[in-house]
Amino acid sequence: MGAPPGYRPSAWVHLLHQLPRADFQLRPVPSGFAPRDQEYQQALLLVAALAGLGLGLSLIFIAVYLIRFCCCRPPEPPGAKSPPPGGGCVTWSCIAALLVGCAGIGIGFYGNSETSDGVSQLSSALQHANHTLSTIDDLVLETVERLGEAVRTELTTLEEVLSERVELVAATRGARRQAEAAAQHLQGLAFWQGVSLSPVQVAEDVTFVEEYRWLAYVLLLLLVLLVCLFTLLGLAKQSKWLVVVMTAMSLLVLVLSWGSMGLEAATAVGLSDFCSNPDTYVLNLTQEETGISSDILNYYFLCNQAVSNPFQQRLTLSQRALASIHSQLQGLEREASPQFPAAQKPLLSLEETLNVTERSFHQLVALLHCRSLHKDYGSALRGLCEDALEGLLFLMLFSLLSAGALATTLCSLPRAWALFPPSDDYDDTDDDDPFNPQESKRFVQWQSSI
Amino acid sequence: MGAPPGYRPSAWVHLLHQLPRADFQLRPVPSGFAPRDQEYQQALLLVAALAGLGLGLSLIFIAVYLIRFCCCRPPEPPGAKSPPPGGGCVTWSCIAALLVGCAGIGIGFYGNSETSDGVSQLSSALQHANHTLSTIDDLVLETVERLGEAVRTELTTLEEVLSERVELVAATRGARRQAEAAAQHLQGLAFWQGVSLSPVQVAEDVTFVEEYRWLAYVLLLLLVLLVCLFTLLGLAKQSKWLVVVMTAMSLLVLVLSWGSMGLEAATAVGLSDFCSNPDTYVLNLTQEETGISSDILNYYFLCNQAVSNPFQQRLTLSQRALASIHSQLQGLEREASPQFPAAQKPLLSLEETLNVTERSFHQLVALLHCRSLHKDYGSALRGLCEDALEGLLFLMLFSLLSAGALATTLCSLPRAWALFPPSDDYDDTDDDDPFNPQESKRFVQWQSSI
Repeated sequence: MGAPPGYRPSAWVHLLHQLPRADFQLRPVPSGFAPRDQEYQQALLLVAALAGLGLGLSLIFIAVYLIRFCCCRPPEPPGAKSPPPGGGCVTWSCIAALLVGCAGIGIGFYGNSETSDGVSQLSSALQHANHTLSTIDDLVLETVERLGEAVRTELTTLEEVLSERVELVAATRGARRQAEAAAQHLQGLAFWQGVSLSPVQVAEDVTFVEEYRWLAYVLLLLLVLLVCLFTLLGLAKQSKWLVVVMTAMSLLVLVLSWGSMGLEAATAVGLSDFCSNPDTYVLNLTQEETGISSDILNYYFLCNQAVSNPFQQRLTLSQRALASIHSQLQGLEREASPQFPAAQKPLLSLEETLNVTERSFHQLVALLHCRSLHKDYGSALRGLCEDALEGLLFLMLFSLLSAGALATTLCSLPRAWALFPPSDDYDDTDDDDPFNPQESKRFVQWQSSI
Repeated sequence: MGAPPGYRPSAWVHLLHQLPRADFQLRPVPSGFAPRDQEYQQALLLVAALAGLGLGLSLIFIAVYLIRFCCCRPPEPPGAKSPPPGGGCVTWSCIAALLVGCAGIGIGFYGNSETSDGVSQLSSALQHANHTLSTIDDLVLETVERLGEAVRTELTTLEEVLSERVELVAATRGARRQAEAAAQHLQGLAFWQGVSLSPVQVAEDVTFVEEYRWLAYVLLLLLVLLVCLFTLLGLAKQSKWLVVVMTAMSLLVLVLSWGSMGLEAATAVGLSDFCSNPDTYVLNLTQEETGISSDILNYYFLCNQAVSNPFQQRLTLSQRALASIHSQLQGLEREASPQFPAAQKPLLSLEETLNVTERSFHQLVALLHCRSLHKDYGSALRGLCEDALEGLLFLMLFSLLSAGALATTLCSLPRAWALFPPSDDYDDTDDDDPFNPQESKRFVQWQSSI
């Protein structure tokens, strides 16, 4: 009760996490997330290498296909009446492949924006957590200072004013002891003080990397889009030089697509391992980086009924000390005020300080409760493991579609190129209509008229 | 301090909010969000009617263009050698329009998913707020019951056991009074008890409507996509019946596009009015629906330094009562335990109850603090006013692009249709290549060979 519904690994995480992993010697590697473990790094590199294998295979396939097309082509008699078989099929398959590539680009834009959303959710959760942590520190510092100030000024004045009556001086000293005790208990609550790890710094680093990743993908997507559009234009205009340039560009983009595919696959697999059981890893890493005791970290990272609040005792003791100061002040007011009018002012001022301290204390209790920080943790995990991972999978689909489309285009373009008229008389004609039947229509009419 | 960085209206909200509004008599209407105000409703309807005007204008334009094309066409001599001027231009413009339409569909899918994301963020924030509110109620109920149970059993037993010593009975009675006071103070904290408005019900209603909206848009997008693809197919295959069917479908989808545009424009304008200053409206509405006092609602909806915690006094009083019970129990333990061994058990049990109550009290302080609920409010607003509004704007762009594309297609299709061969001999040929120059090439070769 009290803990908001947390993060649950999605089906994609489970699926990717269950894929087998192997190191360079093809020995199985456990799929727990261990980015510093050499075998695990090798397993991820092997996943990325699979994309290299895909690239190699598709290049070999294209080469074999084109060599077979160039060398095994049946010799065509000059001025032959019949068009080479499959000419239309080649251009149509090229267009279909480019349309699939364009659909892939749409998917890529969506995936890129989804990943970016996920990472920005992670970053804003980190910033929110940082806000909470720094507010706790500030509040503790402020409250402790306020109590110290009250001890130094009002309580000292009160002791001097009441110095004639021993039992009142004893009560004032009791209040002073309680105030010092409360300040000491509260001091221990600023658990993030002096910790070198800053969530806001992590958030800035993540945002910085993400901005460049996002930009790189947008540029890649625009490059693929331009290649698709200019290839279509080259086919429509039957411009040989454009088709040649686009063949070379397609080859480059094919390599880039498979490269991005490798990066995405390795990242997705690593992310799925992280996301299938993030608590242990994040807990250990935070403990290593900050040196904060494990019961505090457990409280914030797990935030369930089983983990008790590690600040409970300090909070209860501070609360009792504050309540005891209050009852002592009330006693003093009752006893001392009528006899010592000079005590009135410091007593009122102490009451006011106590009220403000109690307000700050309640705020501190709210901030220290695991709900807020655990919600940020859950939100960061959801950003990373749901949105960002989903975006990565869409980017993988884009890479796959564009690689397939470009491989098909690379197979088809030289064949379509061979079908173009040898001279430049069809280049740059203004009314070349891809669906215009007039030319062949006139040819049929001409044939029947002679 | 303590309040997380909240919601700020985006530039789009400001822009849309500053557009002038008018009612049916074209009198200016203030742009404050007032959905129950008749003039404001008229202003939104007028915004939607602008889309109807757009539809009317584009239909008139298409009709004029086509009438001019049909009636003012120069008579073409039968068997003319030259193709009608602009034939290629017509088909190319048709293809370009359809490609723009396809790009619009991609934008539409993105906008639809963005809107859906925003609404689901709103819905999950409402569910989280509901979780917090119900946890507060449960916790208060549980704590009050626990205190009542302690008063009924342990304190009564203790009073009976210690009945011989008057001052110990007085201390026990003091503890009982404090426990009853604490229970009474805590009782007043369950501010959502008996309120008929359930955020989870609102979340379910919103999700229900959003599911159908999402589905309707997906169907519309698929319809536009199918119309684009089949029109392209009809042009490629020169299939007259397909082009005729697609002309009719384009007209239908044009109407649907302008219709969705009107809905989106009115929703976006209304949403921008809501989002430019949501606090006042939500505060008044919640007060009306729940009857909760305005200082509590102000505390949660504003959550800044200026608004003090309305539960502060109750919390402080409960806390002091609990601390006082603790000191009385400690006194009793010191005094009574040596003389009355039978008092040991209820005293230990009371200590345990007090510890649990103090834990619950700290959790209650954390839950009642405005941070958590205000964060949900901010998250709901961001979902609605950033993601959902942005999605709506993308959907508007889709509607505009698809309306433009379909209007161009509607102008071009009959002209392209007129260019098709009159007989069916070109329908269903398998190797019709849109870019195949062989036919005209052979025509030239034929010409030069004779």
